[in-house]
Amino acid sequence: MTEELLKKGTLAKDAAFKLVTTKSEIKNAALEKIADALIKNSAKILAANKTDIENAEKKGTRKAMIDRLTLTDARIADMAEGVRQVAALDDPIGKIIDEWERPNGLKIAKKRVPIGVIGIIYEARPNVTVDAAVLCLKSSNAVILRGGSEAISSNKAIMKIMQDAAYSAGIPEGSMNIVEDTSRATATELMKMNGYIDLLIPRGSAGLIRSVVENATVPVIETGAGNCHIYVDGDCDFDMAIKICENARVSRPSVCNSAETFLIDKKIANEFLPKLVKVLKDDHVEIRGCDECRKICPDINAATPEDWSTEYNDYIVSIKIVDGVKEAIKHINIYNTKHSDAIVTNNSAHAEMFLNEVDAAAVYVNASTRFTDGFEFGFGAEIGISTQKIHARGPMGLEQLTSIKYVIHGNGQIR
Amino acid sequence: MTEELLKKGTLAKDAAFKLVTTKSEIKNAALEKIADALIKNSAKILAANKTDIENAEKKGTRKAMIDRLTLTDARIADMAEGVRQVAALDDPIGKIIDEWERPNGLKIAKKRVPIGVIGIIYEARPNVTVDAAVLCLKSSNAVILRGGSEAISSNKAIMKIMQDAAYSAGIPEGSMNIVEDTSRATATELMKMNGYIDLLIPRGSAGLIRSVVENATVPVIETGAGNCHIYVDGDCDFDMAIKICENARVSRPSVCNSAETFLIDKKIANEFLPKLVKVLKDDHVEIRGCDECRKICPDINAATPEDWSTEYNDYIVSIKIVDGVKEAIKHINIYNTKHSDAIVTNNSAHAEMFLNEVDAAAVYVNASTRFTDGFEFGFGAEIGISTQKIHARGPMGLEQLTSIKYVIHGNGQIR
Repeated sequence: MTEELLKKGTLAKDAAFKLVTTKSEIKNAALEKIADALIKNSAKILAANKTDIENAEKKGTRKAMIDRLTLTDARIADMAEGVRQVAALDDPIGKIIDEWERPNGLKIAKKRVPIGVIGIIYEARPNVTVDAAVLCLKSSNAVILRGGSEAISSNKAIMKIMQDAAYSAGIPEGSMNIVEDTSRATATELMKMNGYIDLLIPRGSAGLIRSVVENATVPVIETGAGNCHIYVDGDCDFDMAIKICENARVSRPSVCNSAETFLIDKKIANEFLPKLVKVLKDDHVEIRGCDECRKICPDINAATPEDWSTEYNDYIVSIKIVDGVKEAIKHINIYNTKHSDAIVTNNSAHAEMFLNEVDAAAVYVNASTRFTDGFEFGFGAEIGISTQKIHARGPMGLEQLTSIKYVIHGNGQIR
Repeated sequence: MTEELLKKGTLAKDAAFKLVTTKSEIKNAALEKIADALIKNSAKILAANKTDIENAEKKGTRKAMIDRLTLTDARIADMAEGVRQVAALDDPIGKIIDEWERPNGLKIAKKRVPIGVIGIIYEARPNVTVDAAVLCLKSSNAVILRGGSEAISSNKAIMKIMQDAAYSAGIPEGSMNIVEDTSRATATELMKMNGYIDLLIPRGSAGLIRSVVENATVPVIETGAGNCHIYVDGDCDFDMAIKICENARVSRPSVCNSAETFLIDKKIANEFLPKLVKVLKDDHVEIRGCDECRKICPDINAATPEDWSTEYNDYIVSIKIVDGVKEAIKHINIYNTKHSDAIVTNNSAHAEMFLNEVDAAAVYVNASTRFTDGFEFGFGAEIGISTQKIHARGPMGLEQLTSIKYVIHGNGQIR
């Protein structure tokens, strides 16, 4: 472990013990102070951000990446507003979830407690620095952030402002940390900080997440891979189906809950496909279809087997004609990333089969996959969307950043 | 991946999709059939077990290990009775845990679903083969078991009997699997079966668990490491404290919920320690004390710094005199394995501080740590005791072998 990691790991671990009993009022006051300080110090943040942008430009970084990196007064105001929204959420910590008494008189209570120290590895977006830090603070977790090298100057400035605000409001020092050494080797060491980090959450590209899964020895929650599907059933409202397909692909192509593949029931393909293709072409979406699709619409491109497992994150979609709901489910369970999949149908038996048998965090009937999101679910905030099955599945809000503890009162019971 | 793992992984994954919709009645009938078949085929099981015992004796395996390996008619009857108890438990699968409607009309339900395919790596105890398989079956998970080479003949015989019984009762073929190649290399490959195994649970020695944590790329739940403490507060009932200490150390020294270290408040050490030492000596417990202890009871052995982090699993205990509850909490949070720790006290402020600040799955006031157990908690069964903070903490019953899924009904919502 590097000296920096050891130092920050130790600080975070010590702070985590203190955060368990830090009162809600102190946490909320600290969050309000952080929001104020971000606004008050926006000039400092913008100056640091300018350094990052200049470095990125020198390196010839592509424009989309620089866009994600760039902060403005408006974006800082949004970040501060996000912090105030987190302050307003219910504090999950300390709640008794369940309690019961055993025949021997032992009283057992199941209590919500923080996880401890949470590590977060992410890429170039400086707003994640604020989001992740304040969600961890609100749930009484210490945090060690490791953002990408592209944003390090912005991240350091933002972290310093948040630390000063939080610690002066009574939050234990060491609760919020950022790793300043953004080398790959140090990131790999961070993934192996057993005894210091209780949970590691990677947020970013498929490559980053794969690297964490392969290298980490601390517990990990995988997030964000989104190869999502819309299955258009033979018995459905065509207008609704077209609106849902269009929304799921076009409204924000780069996000994980957008759809990458449409599956069309062969019973309606002849009639439905040309209508769908027309709308998508008007939206400037590249369409890659199976052989059956191309018999109906010869002017679309041919899909290769690789397309079924590709998350385009772009104005591209693959379309396959299937023989009913069973084949659709089978295709989805082979190729999906267990994120979000939808059926458009008027047939309730088909809907039930799809909802039961498709293996995904969120399964929809007659709605766009774009709703898989902490805010849209009503969680008030999210730190990511889990695509694995243990601990948390789907949008992770504050509750998903907690653990439990059994608190047992006896009067001398022995076994 | 070896051919065997690929074959069994594929079978298990296919079966897992079918198990999602396998009805409770079929699962329960299969469990009753398994219980019957174990009894009916006990001669076969004992013959296979004899092979394992003879091989172990040839290798000069120590007696305690051979004891754990040895099956008898009575032990087989116990195993079958355990299976019937699991059949009688509530089925957790398919329950709606929560549901709500969003302002846009989307109806979101949070539903309990199986995890998918669970891998279990364990050592020489053939009863784990039955326990683990039936808990996974009841919770609609497919299972891949990998027991130790010492018990392979018993495990294969037991698995064949369970498979025949379960599959003839309508359980999808491939739901229950045992890895026949018990090499270390194959175990390591099992730990990296991403895409096939959704959760891996190691059960056994600290060495096994460490190896899984270091090598696994699939999600893991650590179980069983138990460096548990009893803190005897200055203000307590001496008789109760002695009974709890004795029970926590002596009643079953080899299990993870037994206590390894007693911490004694210095305010009562002169009076209390000699009484405790007398009882422990009568129980033939080796006592290793700090310097302060040895000033009071010079005839006990000296503890080394290593003792504080040692799980003896034997008739040995370490004792340390501490300056009140705060020092006790500090010591525990450095050395415990986050399993179970107890305070004996009449002082409610000390109890509250201890319960809040000690970081463990189970924290007790005035009771023995020996109660951290799925049956004692009333869960009806357990597959292990989790000592990590994500997904499950403490005794893992059926509910801890499940995941969730969001099932969303719309009427054309787009975003």
